[in-house]
This record gives sequence, structure tokens and C-alpha cells, in this order.
Amino acid sequence: MAHKIAILGASGYTGAELVRLIALHPNMEIAALSGERKAGLAMAEVFPHLRHLELPALCRIDEIDFSEIDLCFCALPHKTSQEVIRALPRNMKIVDLSADFRLRDPGDYEKWYGNQHAALEQQDEAVYGLTEFYRDEIRSARLVAGTGCNAATGQYALRPLIAAGVIDLDDIILDLKCAVSGAGRSLRENLLHAELSEGYNAYAIGGTHRHLGEFDQEFSRLAGRPVQVQFTPHLIPANRGILATVYVKGEAQVIHETFAAAYRGEPFVQLLPLGEAPSTHHVRGSNHVHIGVTADRIEGRAIVIAALDNLTKGSSGQALQNANLMLGEDETEGLMMPPLFP
Amino acid sequence: MAHKIAILGASGYTGAELVRLIALHPNMEIAALSGERKAGLAMAEVFPHLRHLELPALCRIDEIDFSEIDLCFCALPHKTSQEVIRALPRNMKIVDLSADFRLRDPGDYEKWYGNQHAALEQQDEAVYGLTEFYRDEIRSARLVAGTGCNAATGQYALRPLIAAGVIDLDDIILDLKCAVSGAGRSLRENLLHAELSEGYNAYAIGGTHRHLGEFDQEFSRLAGRPVQVQFTPHLIPANRGILATVYVKGEAQVIHETFAAAYRGEPFVQLLPLGEAPSTHHVRGSNHVHIGVTADRIEGRAIVIAALDNLTKGSSGQALQNANLMLGEDETEGLMMPPLFP
Amino acid sequence: MAHKIAILGASGYTGAELVRLIALHPNMEIAALSGERKAGLAMAEVFPHLRHLELPALCRIDEIDFSEIDLCFCALPHKTSQEVIRALPRNMKIVDLSADFRLRDPGDYEKWYGNQHAALEQQDEAVYGLTEFYRDEIRSARLVAGTGCNAATGQYALRPLIAAGVIDLDDIILDLKCAVSGAGRSLRENLLHAELSEGYNAYAIGGTHRHLGEFDQEFSRLAGRPVQVQFTPHLIPANRGILATVYVKGEAQVIHETFAAAYRGEPFVQLLPLGEAPSTHHVRGSNHVHIGVTADRIEGRAIVIAALDNLTKGSSGQALQNANLMLGEDETEGLMMPPLFP
Amino acid sequence: MAHKIAILGASGYTGAELVRLIALHPNMEIAALSGERKAGLAMAEVFPHLRHLELPALCRIDEIDFSEIDLCFCALPHKTSQEVIRALPRNMKIVDLSADFRLRDPGDYEKWYGNQHAALEQQDEAVYGLTEFYRDEIRSARLVAGTGCNAATGQYALRPLIAAGVIDLDDIILDLKCAVSGAGRSLRENLLHAELSEGYNAYAIGGTHRHLGEFDQEFSRLAGRPVQVQFTPHLIPANRGILATVYVKGEAQVIHETFAAAYRGEPFVQLLPLGEAPSTHHVRGSNHVHIGVTADRIEGRAIVIAALDNLTKGSSGQALQNANLMLGEDETEGLMMPPLFP
Repeated sequence: MAHKIAILGASGYTGAELVRLIALHPNMEIAALSGERKAGLAMAEVFPHLRHLELPALCRIDEIDFSEIDLCFCALPHKTSQEVIRALPRNMKIVDLSADFRLRDPGDYEKWYGNQHAALEQQDEAVYGLTEFYRDEIRSARLVAGTGCNAATGQYALRPLIAAGVIDLDDIILDLKCAVSGAGRSLRENLLHAELSEGYNAYAIGGTHRHLGEFDQEFSRLAGRPVQVQFTPHLIPANRGILATVYVKGEAQVIHETFAAAYRGEPFVQLLPLGEAPSTHHVRGSNHVHIGVTADRIEGRAIVIAALDNLTKGSSGQALQNANLMLGEDETEGLMMPPLFP
Repeated sequence: MAHKIAILGASGYTGAELVRLIALHPNMEIAALSGERKAGLAMAEVFPHLRHLELPALCRIDEIDFSEIDLCFCALPHKTSQEVIRALPRNMKIVDLSADFRLRDPGDYEKWYGNQHAALEQQDEAVYGLTEFYRDEIRSARLVAGTGCNAATGQYALRPLIAAGVIDLDDIILDLKCAVSGAGRSLRENLLHAELSEGYNAYAIGGTHRHLGEFDQEFSRLAGRPVQVQFTPHLIPANRGILATVYVKGEAQVIHETFAAAYRGEPFVQLLPLGEAPSTHHVRGSNHVHIGVTADRIEGRAIVIAALDNLTKGSSGQALQNANLMLGEDETEGLMMPPLFP
Repeated sequence: MAHKIAILGASGYTGAELVRLIALHPNMEIAALSGERKAGLAMAEVFPHLRHLELPALCRIDEIDFSEIDLCFCALPHKTSQEVIRALPRNMKIVDLSADFRLRDPGDYEKWYGNQHAALEQQDEAVYGLTEFYRDEIRSARLVAGTGCNAATGQYALRPLIAAGVIDLDDIILDLKCAVSGAGRSLRENLLHAELSEGYNAYAIGGTHRHLGEFDQEFSRLAGRPVQVQFTPHLIPANRGILATVYVKGEAQVIHETFAAAYRGEPFVQLLPLGEAPSTHHVRGSNHVHIGVTADRIEGRAIVIAALDNLTKGSSGQALQNANLMLGEDETEGLMMPPLFP
Repeated sequence: MAHKIAILGASGYTGAELVRLIALHPNMEIAALSGERKAGLAMAEVFPHLRHLELPALCRIDEIDFSEIDLCFCALPHKTSQEVIRALPRNMKIVDLSADFRLRDPGDYEKWYGNQHAALEQQDEAVYGLTEFYRDEIRSARLVAGTGCNAATGQYALRPLIAAGVIDLDDIILDLKCAVSGAGRSLRENLLHAELSEGYNAYAIGGTHRHLGEFDQEFSRLAGRPVQVQFTPHLIPANRGILATVYVKGEAQVIHETFAAAYRGEPFVQLLPLGEAPSTHHVRGSNHVHIGVTADRIEGRAIVIAALDNLTKGSSGQALQNANLMLGEDETEGLMMPPLFP
């Protein structure tokens, strides 16, 4: 019998992406979709590309009977998410896509997000949702905290290297290039087509992007000592995709072997031959991560590049992968569609 | 047991799109992929987005053992296609994606394509592949001729109206807007990003586009008298999608009802409420067609708009839909993925 | 001595485009820039591409000393514009870029814009700003009403034909393709990059677009009888450009000759050889209009295509061209920059 | 009297950009345009956006009477350029836009470009064309070698810092993002719209891009010791623009002051306030460079970002700026147009 699924915040891009993926899942049934400001509308009015599906209309969260729900995806803005999740049934499985349960230390949360955390109990039980590295914990978790999409990309490019001690921990530079859907469906001037297309720029420069909270937490934990990376995101005129170009000090050959060992058997992580580089073109709409390693002409330096789709592997695909684990389904169920190219 | 499939011309966009779709088909197995100029290369080298799939390497057509193949997709250029298909085993099922078997009259073929047809016998047995209108013939066909992608779009917007006699047959204008992947992976100056993006233009103006051969054949056959439409395609800076804006003389309400009756129960044709208009955004990567009807302010005139993805419903999705029928599979198998948005 | 210029509404795209053009004008000096919501900001903060220019900061309209101003461009929203212009000095020259003074009949204005006109006296004296056809009136006008950008494009493609009586007046179809900057800098979901890029659609279908008020007024006046065209605009993923594909009944050769006679000597109208078609790529950022004529395969029908840049020839370039005439400057001053390609 | 100008290689993007700029130059007249493969064609056929200009038709180089030419721009491919320039009159002024005369050491040239240099005498006299840093030499030069567009961008971001000794010379990382017109009008699969739009990737990774030859030469010369930077270019789906994100070890405040001093009075270099970042959106079509400096959260590290238009400041605008100096014209003549936005 199909698991009954609720999606809170279904009028945003990550919500719609969850619907797209679950539509092909043989053992999940979407039982409720919430969207506070668009409550009462059919999904076809909010997302006409889902017109052919039979879906519940958007409702307010307080209209949902959660006693019927097996697993709830929360695709709400941060801060809202913690307030909503605090009030949800304590025994319902939850995959949260917001930033609210990613940081373990309430002080870190407050430092990066500017408000006191309002659901400390849930924060305490939450498991960090980077599937390949927290698989066992996720399987038995009640609440999984989806990672930041940039944070996921950077971690795929760095975790095995930090864990294996094959790079200099004090000189890591992440230059990220992000597509615009990562900013969500928000009405901001710089996200207009006329402002964004045909040009590009860095933002949150100098170490101010909130995903640094995740990098600091995870990399320091892995290394057993504080690790701080330099991280500069750029906004690129494309809709989906993150490309992380990571500059490290270490031997390319060793780095490549370290990845090969770490990702052996992973269904969604593809390591390219040494010297080849991935492109966001080749992961669009899919749950795959492509990783490439190249030696620099300067002895002892290497470039690691990781590419994924921010809406799929970077958020909703990751969320479904985790939900599969939590529900005892095959981890790859609903996620094996190849990328869309061109 | 899975049907064994060959794809000839797998290094082009329609070939890659077939692989993308078949990858999720439970009862098909790709046994051979040809690409003359790229023979010997792995598909991952030609289309890195397919890197995660286990696929045969590209080979030359003469290297394929067709005795093992249940159905062959031909995604070759026109003219080449007829020469290749003429030489294939006479009992093997074939879905051709080229223009070679679309026109029933060899004279029409020569008029629009400029060369004598070299496979008249196969042309004679070929069934026109617009699934919704030739379903029964396709089911029992050996050779199905995939339609032109523009031709498909225009026919979805007009066939039921011509069949029902609810519009003026002498005053039909099709203004089409096509995305660039319809032109294939060919190296032409006007297809370069720097030449194409950020601008748009009409081409093949004045009734010179070859898909008019299909419109003339099909519409005249339906009407039982010669029907000639005006057809102007435009090249739009996007990768996938065709939007046909069709200007007709007739009553919008009647037209809408005619569509409702004609497309009732069709899994891939979505009729929008009267007065609403479709967008190519909402069909990308899917096998769906969206159709809208609006009355003009001028009495007795209506605008019909149809949208589909040229690589999916316009060619490779259509081809798989037909192959499913020919092989006794469920017609929608492998084709139910929702569109990718954004 | 330079003419002193004010631009009201300088924080929108047409305002910024005026600054771009006037920056190279040898006899104009920008003395005041207004922007109510952004008053107090430097232009470099609102439009960083103008960073290198020495410009007055944005102010509120009531802070401007109009006694020093020779000519004022109003790039305000419609309805606001009439209220502002009513209160401006009666002897100051004004070029209005809004819709407020385009329609001569207050009833027509109310029909298309939904509110009563609040500046009937100014509406009465306003001259319609399509330079090539109202040059003499503009030269001596105090208040010139800039045309709609779509309305301008359609009129370049049709006015000479209607005036010369060489086409059927009862069967004219304008299928327009518009780039997104025509919608201004407004925060609307469908104008986001993620919603707009990579797809396209029709809007204001069925004769509901407000620019029809201008078409009806101008074409009926030219023909000396009521003329109604069919007009369907489409939103295309590009920033600048309008392409009007116009379907008419008439002889292509005669139509081409009619254009050649009508536009002989016009500095900004380029008639292409018969059978060639223009592209928005080739007018971007310039004040040029390109026009092409092609015969259809159906006897007695022709396709006329016109292309221009909506922000330049379609609004701010047109406005400067008119201002030049009003101030006794050479009509082409500041406007001879070639298009930007690629 | 106007200087008579020849442009060799006028059928490429940099050639067309030169025509666009010179069209507005009061003291230059285009006397000859060459394009070997398109000889005989009007420029309007090769670049329809230049349709309104009166220009000589494209010819072969050997058809040009150079005795009438005051200055010749060579926008030919590298290797061809040196062969052509070797044969040109020895007293004619030349601005070369190819890579052929950028490197002073013939060994370096051979190392990066793979062939022996065929015009050593001209290479010896050539002056490197980065105007702001070689202004005096350029003024009296006969032959100026235009810089690489990436090389120019990186140098604007680094030269003053290296000269002033305010950054660590052994740890400089240039992560560049380039638009596609930098690759020219060449027919390559990865430059097709369908391949390039909506995605992005690094290329020439690991220190293999030829512009490193320029960086090595210029930075080492400035520092008086060998300096090697890490340089990774990325191809971004846009037509114009280069953004260089440069990671350095040094104090942001000192770096900002160093730039302020170095670029004081420069007409085309705009230093942004400390902490602000430039965007390629805001330089498109112009000759401006925007530079921003931000401190990283890690003590002693800073990020410098430079943005310019590769076709203008990165090649043809730079070339015209140099030609102005060589001909005794005002350096900014023909180059003061503001950027085009949106």
C-alpha cells in the first residue's frame, strides 16, 4: 500500500519538484499539499506543468489531517519551518527542506540566521540529510534536515578529501556558480529575466553566505579541528544547476583515488576520469552529482569540480532519497530519470 | 522478457532523447546504438548526461546484428534514412523519425525534398505516426513514419476542427514558434548561442517549409478536398518547445467543444479551459500537448494555441508511444514523466 | 548652450534608456531625475551601468525646479502620468512615454484603460508621437505622446499599406513577439528568469491588449472607415526586441514598392529586399526598424515582418527623436549608434 | 580630415565590433574591409545589424591598396595574423587583435601556441596593448598587440597589486567566467545554443589556457621575479562579458587604496566602493571595467572582482582606444557610449 505523503509549501519550486518526482514513485501517494497564500487553488493554476496529474488542491496547513500522513515534506521558508514542525505530530516522519534543522548548535543557528531557534527539541533529534554520508542515521531518523544546495555541492567535492587528510585544511577555496531557481520563486528585482539573463556576478562575498554554517560544522567535525573555507557564490543566468570549482592543495592523483574509494557503488555520484570536468548541462533535472579532478600546472595543487541540479540532488531529489530510506523503500525509487539534455 | 531495441543515429538529439526515455522503460533493452561518424565512442563521450547508464558503445550500422533486434528506431537524416531502411530486414519493426516516409505520394516527396524516393516499397507500407489519429494502423504496422515536429503541433491544433467542419478551410494561418533543438545538432552559424540567444526571427517564410507537405496531405485527406494553410515558423531562443498560434474563422465555443470530444480520454492531450492559453514552459521534457482556445474580439474568429516539446511529443516521445503500440506494450509506458519546470 | 532636460520616472527601464541615449547627445544636459520610491539614491545605485556618468541624484518630482527645464520626459506609469503632467508648467515642452495621451477620444481612453481621463486639456493638445508620420505636428508640439511599443511596430508594418489601399482592410492579423523589458521593471512572477527563460506563450489573446486602442484609432483614421485588426502578443525569453509578423491580403510586390516609396529617405527605417526577413537580433539597442515583405505560396497573400527594439525605437529612442524635433535639433542626434550584436 | 582605416578579418565578431564603434568616430573612415571566405559580400549580408551603414564590401586582403590606409586593424586568427602583418607596408600603423604579438619571447610564443613565430622582426617592435599600463609606448608605437580578453580582465584585477607588493605573489587564484562571444564565430558543437544555454562548465583547467602566457610574462616582469597564477576559465551562457574572481592574500583596505591610486583619472576604469561587487550586466557593450574589492572572513584574505565586455574593452574597444593614441586622437573618442542594460 502506498505511503501517504504531505507536502507543506507546495507552491514553491522545491515543492513542485517533489510533486514531479513523486508522480513516478510507485509506492507514494500525495495526500495533501499546502500553500498558505494560494490555499484553495488547484495545483494546475499554480504550476500548469502539473496539469495532467490528479492532485489535491492547495490548502492551509491547519486544514490537513496529519493522522493520515506517513511522511511530511516541509518546503517552507526557514523560521516558518521550525514553528510549523514544532506543532506537528511527534511521531510523524518529516523531511525538512529549509535551513532550520541543519545546524546542530543553536548558537550557530542564531549566528547565521539572526533569530533564536524556536524548536530546540526537534533540532536536537534532526539528522543532517546528506544521504551518502549519513545513510544509517537517516534510515532510523524521524526528522531529517535537508542540506543547503550549495552546501551539498561543496561537501560532495570535499568531504572525502578532508576525511582522508589528503588536502591542506587551511587553504580551501570554493568558487560556486549557482543557477537562479536556488533563490526560489521570490519577487526580487535581481531575479527578473531582464536583470539576470545575459550577465552574472558574485554575491554574499567575503564569507557571509549562510551555507558557510554548514561547511564549518561538517568540515570541522570531519577533521576533528576547526576548518574554515573561503566560499564565493555567483549567480549565473540559467535555471538549474550548481557548479563548485574547488581549489585545494594536494595531489590530483591521490585526490582522484580518494574519491573513487569513497563513492564506489554510490548510485548517484559519478566520478569522471582524472583530468575531465563536469558541466551542469549534464545533470539537469536528475539526481546525479558529477565530480572531476584535475592537477594544476603548479606542483601540489588540484582543482575539484562538482556539478548537480540544485532543485533535484540539491534539495527535492535529496529529500526523496532520504524519505525512501526512512520508509524502507529502495533508496533510488523515483529518482532514476536521466538528466534532460538539451 | 525485454524487447531488444536498436537506435540508429544515436549521436543526435532525437537519438539521445530516445535513450533518456527508454532508460526508464521496464520492458525495453537497448541492444545497439549507431553513429557513423562517432563509431567507437562511448555514449558518455558523446552525451555526458547519459554517463550513468550502461549502454553499448556507438557502432557503424553494418556492425549491428539485426537478427537480435525486435524494434529499430531510425533517427537518421532524411534521404539517408530511406537508403538504410531499404536494406534492413523486412520483418523487423521500425519507427522512423526522419521525413522519408511521411508523404504517401512519391511526387509530393520529390517536390518537398528535392530527390527521388529510393525506397518506394517501404514508403507504401509506412503508417503516419500521429498516434492519436492513426492508433489502430500503428498497432499493426511494421514501419511507422514519425511526423515532423511542427507538423505534429499544427495537426493537434487543427485536425479535429477540419474533420468536424467547424472552421473555414480557406483561411487558416499557422504562426509557429520553434525552439532550436528542432534544428538538430548541426553546426550552422545561426544556431550558435551568440547568434541565436536574445533575438528571434521568422524563417522559411511564404510557404516554403517542408512540413507543409504533411499539412497539405493530412488536411486535404481529412477534408476530402484540397486544403492549404499559411505557415510561418519562427526560431526562438530556447532549447525545447513549439508553440503554434493558429488563426481560424469559426466559433470559439464550438471549437472548444469539438476538441473536448476529440481528445476525451487521451492520456497526453490536455485541453485548457476556454479562454486560457498554453505555454511551452509547461510541457518541457514531457510527452504532453497543451491546447487552448480563445475567441477573438472580431465576431466569428478564434485563436487556437498548441504547445508541445519538439524532442519528446514532437519526435522521440511520439516514436516511443508508437513503438509501445507496435510491441503490445501499454501506450504510455516510459512516457509519464511530468514536465520539467523551471 | 545645452538644453536642460528632466526625466521623471528615471528608475524604470525607459528612464534609464533615456539617460543612456542622452549621455551622448552634444546639446542636452540632464538637470533632474525623479524616482519617487528611490528618491535620494544615486543613479549608480539604481542602475550601476550608469556609474561612470555624472548625474543628479534621484529626487521627488516636487523637488524639481521646472523653471530651469527646457524639456521634460515623463516615463511614469499611465494614470500617474496624466496627474503629474496636468500640474506641470503649461509652457514647458513634454514628451510623455506613458499611454495617457495616445488616444484622442476620452471615451476610448476610458474603454481601454478603465479610468476617466484626468487631464483632458492636455490630451487635447497632445500630438501622437510616431515620428515618421507626425513629423510636422511634432516639430511644433508642446506635448508629444509616445506610442505603445507594440503599437509602433505594428504601425510601421501597416500604415503605408492602409494609406495606399493595397491590402484588404478586413483581414489583417498581427502576431507579435515581444521581449520582456516591455513589461518594465515590475515584480511579477511570470517575469522572473526561472519562469520566463526557456519558454514562451501568448498573452492578452483575443483582442484585449490595450495597444489595440492605438491600432483602431490610427488605422481607422488613415482608412477613413473603421478598421479592426487581430492582434496576439507573445512573450519571448529575450530582453529587447519586438517582431511583428503581419498576415495581409495583397500583392507582395506592390506592398514592397509601397514601403519603398513611403520610407524613402527615412534615417531609421530599413526596407529589406523583397523576400528577406528581419530579426530582432539586428536592431538591439538601436533606433532602427527593419521591415521585410514576402509573398505567400497562396496567391494574393503576403507576410510583412517588422523588427525594432522596444526600449529604443519603441519608446525612449522615439522619445528622443521627437524631443530633437521639438527643440530644433537634428532629428538623429544621439541616435545613430549601430545595434549591438552579438 | 578623417583617418582612413582598414579592418582585416571583418567577418568575425571583433571585426564587426570595430565597425560598430568606428561608425560613431568623427575622425575615422572605413576604407577597406577584408574577409577571405566571404569576399564579395556586402557587410549587410554578413552582419545585417550593420545594414544602415555605408560600408565597402568585403574583399580579399590582396585587393586592398594599403598606400591609402592610415591605420589597419587586424582581426585575423593567430598564426594567420603574423603571416599577413609581415607582408604589410612597414610604415603603416597596425593594431593587431590576435595573439601573435603579445608575447615578447619567441620561445614563450612557441610554448603556448605550438608553432614557430614567422614574424620575429614585427614581434620585436610590438607594444603590448593594455592601454592604461603602456600608454606612452602605445602613443609612439607602429604595431600594437591587443591583449587576450581574459588576460586583460585578470591584469586589471592584479597589476597594481603586484606592482605595489601588497599581495602574496605565490598564492593567486583567478577563477574566470567568460561569455561565449570570446570563442568567436566558429562552428563548434559546444558553442551551439542547444549545448551552451542553461548550463556552464570550466574548460582549459589546470593551467593550460594560452592567456597564461600573458599573465606569466606581465606579472613576472612587474614583480621582477617569476610569478605564476592559477587560472581556470568557465564558459557561461551569455554573449558578452568576463568576470574575474580573484582570490588573493592581502588586506582588502590596502588593496582598495592601491587601486584607487592606480586608476585615479582613468576614463574607463571604475573602482567600486569597498565591499561592493561588479557584474557583467553593467558593462555590456561598453569600454568600461568595473572593479570591486571585498575582505574575506578569513583574516588577511581578499577577493578582487573585475568585469568587462570581452568584445569591447577586452578586444575591439581596447584596439580603438590604442588606435586613438597612435593617431593623436582623444583616447576616448568613439568609446564613451554607456553600457546597454537591460
